[in-house]
Amino acid sequence: MRKILVIGAGKSASFLIKYLLDKSIEEQLHIIVGDINIQNAKKLIDNHENGHAITLDIFSNQSRKEAIENADIVVSMLPARYHIEVAKDCITYGKHMVTASYVSKEMEELDTVAKNKGLVFMNEIGVDPGIDHMSAMKVIDNIRSKGGKMILFESFTGGLVAPESDNNLWNYKFTWNPRNVVVAGQGSAAKFLQEGTYKYIPYNRLFRRTEFLEVDGYGRFEAYANRDSLKYQNVYGLADIKTLYRGTMRRVGFSRAWNVFVQLGMTDDSYTIEDSENMSYRDFVNAFLPYSHTDSVELKFRHALKIDQDDIVWEKLEELDIFSSTKMVELKNATPAQILQKILMDSWMLDDNDKDMIVMYHKFGYELNGKMHQIDSTMVAKGDDRVYTAMAKTVGLPVAMATLAILNEKITTPGVQIPINKEVYNPILDELEGFGIKFTEKEVPYLGYNPLNV
Amino acid sequence: MRKILVIGAGKSASFLIKYLLDKSIEEQLHIIVGDINIQNAKKLIDNHENGHAITLDIFSNQSRKEAIENADIVVSMLPARYHIEVAKDCITYGKHMVTASYVSKEMEELDTVAKNKGLVFMNEIGVDPGIDHMSAMKVIDNIRSKGGKMILFESFTGGLVAPESDNNLWNYKFTWNPRNVVVAGQGSAAKFLQEGTYKYIPYNRLFRRTEFLEVDGYGRFEAYANRDSLKYQNVYGLADIKTLYRGTMRRVGFSRAWNVFVQLGMTDDSYTIEDSENMSYRDFVNAFLPYSHTDSVELKFRHALKIDQDDIVWEKLEELDIFSSTKMVELKNATPAQILQKILMDSWMLDDNDKDMIVMYHKFGYELNGKMHQIDSTMVAKGDDRVYTAMAKTVGLPVAMATLAILNEKITTPGVQIPINKEVYNPILDELEGFGIKFTEKEVPYLGYNPLNV
Repeated sequence: MRKILVIGAGKSASFLIKYLLDKSIEEQLHIIVGDINIQNAKKLIDNHENGHAITLDIFSNQSRKEAIENADIVVSMLPARYHIEVAKDCITYGKHMVTASYVSKEMEELDTVAKNKGLVFMNEIGVDPGIDHMSAMKVIDNIRSKGGKMILFESFTGGLVAPESDNNLWNYKFTWNPRNVVVAGQGSAAKFLQEGTYKYIPYNRLFRRTEFLEVDGYGRFEAYANRDSLKYQNVYGLADIKTLYRGTMRRVGFSRAWNVFVQLGMTDDSYTIEDSENMSYRDFVNAFLPYSHTDSVELKFRHALKIDQDDIVWEKLEELDIFSSTKMVELKNATPAQILQKILMDSWMLDDNDKDMIVMYHKFGYELNGKMHQIDSTMVAKGDDRVYTAMAKTVGLPVAMATLAILNEKITTPGVQIPINKEVYNPILDELEGFGIKFTEKEVPYLGYNPLNV
Repeated sequence: MRKILVIGAGKSASFLIKYLLDKSIEEQLHIIVGDINIQNAKKLIDNHENGHAITLDIFSNQSRKEAIENADIVVSMLPARYHIEVAKDCITYGKHMVTASYVSKEMEELDTVAKNKGLVFMNEIGVDPGIDHMSAMKVIDNIRSKGGKMILFESFTGGLVAPESDNNLWNYKFTWNPRNVVVAGQGSAAKFLQEGTYKYIPYNRLFRRTEFLEVDGYGRFEAYANRDSLKYQNVYGLADIKTLYRGTMRRVGFSRAWNVFVQLGMTDDSYTIEDSENMSYRDFVNAFLPYSHTDSVELKFRHALKIDQDDIVWEKLEELDIFSSTKMVELKNATPAQILQKILMDSWMLDDNDKDMIVMYHKFGYELNGKMHQIDSTMVAKGDDRVYTAMAKTVGLPVAMATLAILNEKITTPGVQIPINKEVYNPILDELEGFGIKFTEKEVPYLGYNPLNV
């Protein structure tokens, strides 16, 4: 039996562990799932004969090292900041490692020693990052092999609620860490390339500079720009590309309504609100509006943001009950972002049988034999329920597949890496199709930013 | 002869040095002016027999310590971050010290040792902070001595161009560090108290939440909120006050136009623009607007910010030449804020004979014998020219007066302090009147935030 240690039995581990257990007899696998709360691990193993739950406190050096030393390969599904301790132990005990997280600076620094020891440290092999890298590189490599020259790459991902479970005016529910949704886009301006020109969007404009995307069978979406669209420019070999844009997808209308919170300052996570514990939701909203002895919070709100009486944005706000004077914040020394998160969690949590949905959309513009071409590639994956989500499926399955491929020596190139090479992405993308995670490519006219050719 | 060491012969030192030299014979003073560029010091001393210019590099421990040891009292007009080295030497050599800057944490920590050595470390005795403290505390102490209870305190200061030199559409010129103007208001939300309620304004709304102020003889001004209006709540003894607001004054219309830069992201100082060196002003503006093959930068700008064709804001922007394709940025790796500062400096520098103007406006609301009262107190000071500015006058004169008062043992309370006590503010405010820096107080009906009493 080969031993796979999975550390962390949280939201994203359900499909990962199911996949490995399903393969465990045929592949002779023993799956050890470690979590600080052993019940989380037990629930996902569900008494499978080849599964074994252990209590694993990542801060206990002894138990962590012992578990890692005892494994043949280690999967870390911990929050990204905890990977590095696991990675160092993997170096010490000579174990391969797989994560779905961005390569941190500390992780990158282990590259040489991982290579010297012949260890594969595969990262960013979830959905975004992960499936986006793999599906994009497959098309880009294909265009290049035909002699094409990439001139445009735009890539969009959204974690949304599936249409059949979509029953609120925002067409949105939390399918992942709510905090990340509330503070999304904060920090430096979003930066990208359009037709050879660098463009910058400050946070306060981010949700008003969206673009539309149509997905066959699913209708229209909108997207706002990610912080740094240029992050993978060199990794993907796109140094000379004219247009490079990465974005986050929402249903049309979400961003315009979300912008109301941004404008008022309700997403700010940099300071705490006085006496937040004893505020009603209405008090919280009122803290961002001028004092008035006579005017209602509602009218001050409409006036400040110029919201007409028949604007759908207003109904979205009312749906969240933000003007309630009886619902209380009940959070001590909370930041505006923390309070807003609480308010949204009242409305946007998945119900037991709700299905989520991951949508991905890539546009590839290229020149071949003097002509311009464009390929649009889309993928929609739906979850089964609140535990077996599309998010868990699209994050967990590629992690699981990569883990098995490394164990079976199908992936052998050592070092700290992300899945941008054929040996990695081809078999995984093929296998993902069997799970319904399939990209549909179509050739469309290349429009670029001069569609009328004027 | 008593020796006064003035470190730093920059913009704010002109009146300070002139005052001390004018008093030097009668008061038996020898004024040593140290600057890293001795020419700056010489220019301000202008061959006065009791003045002496020295080269003083604050980073050279030996020359700094020597100059301080040799003085009877030390005035630091350096940028605020450099005061602490001077302060430590003043402790070592037992010298009093005066600055016009905010008390830093490091400065505050010297309080006990300064007290033990009987040294007066007077800070925040310029204009804002400085004259604002003194003029406000005089009225507040007076209200309290009558048995009044403070319920409202609002305080506004503006460094502006005098009406006779006001010849641009913004009614504004730089009279102080331009960088501080460009990044003003950034960071956490502005926080203040209105009628017992904490209010917060995020940066992106700051310049749209202004209020109007009328100054007799000078017309209407507007003010936007300072970052932390509550900073002096306890220092002024206003723990129970209902309304506490501090703001910055501009001529009406400035803030609405400035907000355009804020909204586009042009005041951001947190990242650098690609290839800023080779950009035209027009390229810079275009970096914050979507790419278009057909539409002009002007139309994209108007559309993005919803600026009608007959809006005065547009003329203000055109006056700055921000759409020029021939004026070049010429700054390497510059932040948006640095580039904007350069563009503004083309238009907003004082001419040789331009006069600047400092305006201050306090509102004091109080209850006395069951009745509500309000006192409004205003001050306007004008400069003589580009060197002898109102800014230099209002910063430098109180510093000079405090220095002499300490030397003459009129101010004796030791420790790190700001000018909120009668022994300090009464004689200085009296003497400032002789220089035309005079507050006009008038009783007005108390309106508060419920003027119609509904």
